[in-house]
Amino acid sequence: MIIPDHVEKNARLYSNKTAIIFEDRRCTFDELEERVYRLSNGLLGLGVVKGDRVAIIQDNCFEYPELYYGIGKAGAIITPLNYRLTGSELAYLLNHSEANTLIIGKDFIETIKSFLPELKFIKNYVCIGGKPEGMINYDELLSCSFTKNPGQKVQSDDVASLIYTGGTTGRPKGVILTHKNWMANATTNIVEWKLQSGEIDLIVTPLFHVGSSWPLFANFIMGNTEIILKRVDIENLLRTVERERVTTTLWISPVVKQVINYPDLGKYDLSSLKLVITGGAPSSEYQLRKLIEVTKCRLMTGSGQTETGWTTKICVNDHLDNPERVLSVGTDAYKMEIRVVDDHDRDVAAGEVGELITRGDGVMQGYWKMPEETAQAMRGGWHHTGDLVRIDEEGYITYVDRKKDMIKTGGENVFSQEVEEILCKNKAVLEAGVIGIPDEKWGEAIKALIVLRPGEKATEEELIAHCKKHIAGFKCPKSVEFLESFPRTGLGKIAKNVLRDEYWKGYERKVH
Amino acid sequence: MIIPDHVEKNARLYSNKTAIIFEDRRCTFDELEERVYRLSNGLLGLGVVKGDRVAIIQDNCFEYPELYYGIGKAGAIITPLNYRLTGSELAYLLNHSEANTLIIGKDFIETIKSFLPELKFIKNYVCIGGKPEGMINYDELLSCSFTKNPGQKVQSDDVASLIYTGGTTGRPKGVILTHKNWMANATTNIVEWKLQSGEIDLIVTPLFHVGSSWPLFANFIMGNTEIILKRVDIENLLRTVERERVTTTLWISPVVKQVINYPDLGKYDLSSLKLVITGGAPSSEYQLRKLIEVTKCRLMTGSGQTETGWTTKICVNDHLDNPERVLSVGTDAYKMEIRVVDDHDRDVAAGEVGELITRGDGVMQGYWKMPEETAQAMRGGWHHTGDLVRIDEEGYITYVDRKKDMIKTGGENVFSQEVEEILCKNKAVLEAGVIGIPDEKWGEAIKALIVLRPGEKATEEELIAHCKKHIAGFKCPKSVEFLESFPRTGLGKIAKNVLRDEYWKGYERKVH
Repeated sequence: MIIPDHVEKNARLYSNKTAIIFEDRRCTFDELEERVYRLSNGLLGLGVVKGDRVAIIQDNCFEYPELYYGIGKAGAIITPLNYRLTGSELAYLLNHSEANTLIIGKDFIETIKSFLPELKFIKNYVCIGGKPEGMINYDELLSCSFTKNPGQKVQSDDVASLIYTGGTTGRPKGVILTHKNWMANATTNIVEWKLQSGEIDLIVTPLFHVGSSWPLFANFIMGNTEIILKRVDIENLLRTVERERVTTTLWISPVVKQVINYPDLGKYDLSSLKLVITGGAPSSEYQLRKLIEVTKCRLMTGSGQTETGWTTKICVNDHLDNPERVLSVGTDAYKMEIRVVDDHDRDVAAGEVGELITRGDGVMQGYWKMPEETAQAMRGGWHHTGDLVRIDEEGYITYVDRKKDMIKTGGENVFSQEVEEILCKNKAVLEAGVIGIPDEKWGEAIKALIVLRPGEKATEEELIAHCKKHIAGFKCPKSVEFLESFPRTGLGKIAKNVLRDEYWKGYERKVH
Repeated sequence: MIIPDHVEKNARLYSNKTAIIFEDRRCTFDELEERVYRLSNGLLGLGVVKGDRVAIIQDNCFEYPELYYGIGKAGAIITPLNYRLTGSELAYLLNHSEANTLIIGKDFIETIKSFLPELKFIKNYVCIGGKPEGMINYDELLSCSFTKNPGQKVQSDDVASLIYTGGTTGRPKGVILTHKNWMANATTNIVEWKLQSGEIDLIVTPLFHVGSSWPLFANFIMGNTEIILKRVDIENLLRTVERERVTTTLWISPVVKQVINYPDLGKYDLSSLKLVITGGAPSSEYQLRKLIEVTKCRLMTGSGQTETGWTTKICVNDHLDNPERVLSVGTDAYKMEIRVVDDHDRDVAAGEVGELITRGDGVMQGYWKMPEETAQAMRGGWHHTGDLVRIDEEGYITYVDRKKDMIKTGGENVFSQEVEEILCKNKAVLEAGVIGIPDEKWGEAIKALIVLRPGEKATEEELIAHCKKHIAGFKCPKSVEFLESFPRTGLGKIAKNVLRDEYWKGYERKVH
């Protein structure tokens, strides 16, 4: 069984049921199947063969779901790219993936235009919503293609997707997932969130990211309707929940923050909501409690990576009387094995900090054209997440830091997140990013980058003094710098690699 | 991940939650883990090694769940036998499985006693509830064994169980299932029945059968409590639902029949029930509608085999306005592929009768020491269920007959079930079993075996005349015989092989 099989199953069982709602467009599962077949046959007609990469540069749109299913059905490998990247970054990924076909939204033509001569492998350009010179129009491709099942033989061990990780560190890596990995991740979603049939799910975050595509897969397996928003727009989000009686949705933590702070929140009827899932960057305890108060529904959080799918999950409502547990990223999810290990892959004791490693059918095959990084990440048959965590006796995990964000200063290990949390307790601080910078004396010296709350003021000395009141001297920043805003990853996390780059120019390794 | 892992996970996450309720005994997940470890270590101490068969002869009891988990945890293969078999039948299976250990309830010692000298492979006899000479007492085995995790390395492709099919035809066949098969079947259960956490599940049918062990596995994955009844006793069943606020349960069709006909049904509060699953022999439309009326809950039915797990499922409530659909055994279940084929494995058209074949992670590895039967059943990589079915455009399947129960008479194929249904429309008939018997003229001649309703009367001529009013002449019985009761399989189906045996003695093949 592969993920695209469910389009056919749904067309069979729920033919006239609404599959997708996007702005003023809707389609039934029957219509979706027809579009998927047309896209599949269209790609085969363009000479796309099994295993070819078909890259996507497009924001959320009516067509995005059918791209996953139609490309998969043709036996090709979907390579959905982050449309927020620059033309140069996109060109790098298009060349690295050696995709021979690019499906691009008309709004992104301008971004890529000047880099077209650099693209070495693309043979077919297909444009959604336009028809620039040298490109095929997407609708025309579909309308002149067959509606028959393409009948391409695709098996569960065939590669389904190549997804470049936003990457908080280093060069983007292309994560290889098979149809079996997709199915395993969908199963974990269904079992852990206890998805029902008859739900109306709302996707608010970009569909190039697994955080949005896996809810899609899982809900379609249950025959549920998907509503897709073009972009995160809280007013539209709230209006959509009310109008369409949305029952389930995944909101990454920046969305959670915006929802609970939305001034007119009380005006909207959110009573249809049964389940909100959060993930991505961690939310604060206040935010999670506030979200339960506002939505009055089951709130679950999980953590995972493109490489692994959801690895852990927790139902926050069950742990409100235990503040430590509320901030946990949860326990091992269904069919995912986890361990917490030291640098030599030996299990650490409960309560000790170690790296989270995981194994299961959802875990990737490796990184595209990066055999060394693959061997390193997958050593011993376990995927090394790069997350430093603590695990309690019952298996609940608390996130400590990214392994690469840990600062080694004067022989001590300092977890950047701990320092950031202390800084954020100062009322002047909106956000803090703490990094290690090269230092002759300390190896690395701790530097805090700060965005202040609007209208608030603070000096370097005041913030260092604030830290000294709460944590050991060696954990306190040696210097503080103020920024207007932070560079961010696709998931809204602070891009610490960008922060660090400033200070590590000229150094070969980013550890001193 | 293997099924016994979930005992540990539950002990970690829900340590003090009730895992099992059996009569006046209860245990928590913590206690269950300890018992599983003790049993595992006890077996290892008796010299049981990975891959050894450990056979069980016991009816439902407090210990049955831990047998599955403890034997699995030791890397051994559980071989749960039908305790309703005769001593001679049990001896045959014990020898065929080459089990070296037998765990037997004290009530079954008498059955097996005179056959002990015939048992060629059993080295260890363990008795639950007693200590006959030459046997170890089960409780003593546990109490003198370690409580530590035995740490046996068991992997998902290792064989977990050897289960002999009740078999409506021929010799019992030992179905080989791996831990991966168990997990896949549990997943199908969770996804298709949409199991939640916090349910109280009730097991009323024998735990030697997959119809009871898979609900156990699925519910323990969700951390749910299992209540186990010793035997089918409708009054106790209803009282238990009321007292323990049971929310989910699986009732095979004879149980359904008894529940809806129970005289004092109205006295019991069944309002806690959220889901009843039925399966096994088909129920009638009247029975299914009545059950929904009585329980007011979601009623799902499915069909499957020991060889395949649940292959199909349907939510009856969704189809009450479509009488044909209500009697369907459903559509393909999650992650199960199905096809309907002719004798040459070619797909038949929608609506045509063919054999149901299936493929998926839940499907068995083969039959124990029966390479030819395995090759025959699994030809082309698909398990041939032996069920003749019709499938409609949407994939809903209607059961027609067992392939081996189809009668070939005078060049025509007659489905025994069709004739049985007509016979049962006669008010005097309680149950009918229709078989083909050897006949010089017709090849096979149709014979009806009839159990009359108490107090009712009918003659052979009357019943043949009744059939002729409803179906073509060639489908009508040539002869009718009246029985007191039918021989039955473990699942309560009429054992047609036993009925046929009477007439086919001396014939080499049971098709003329």
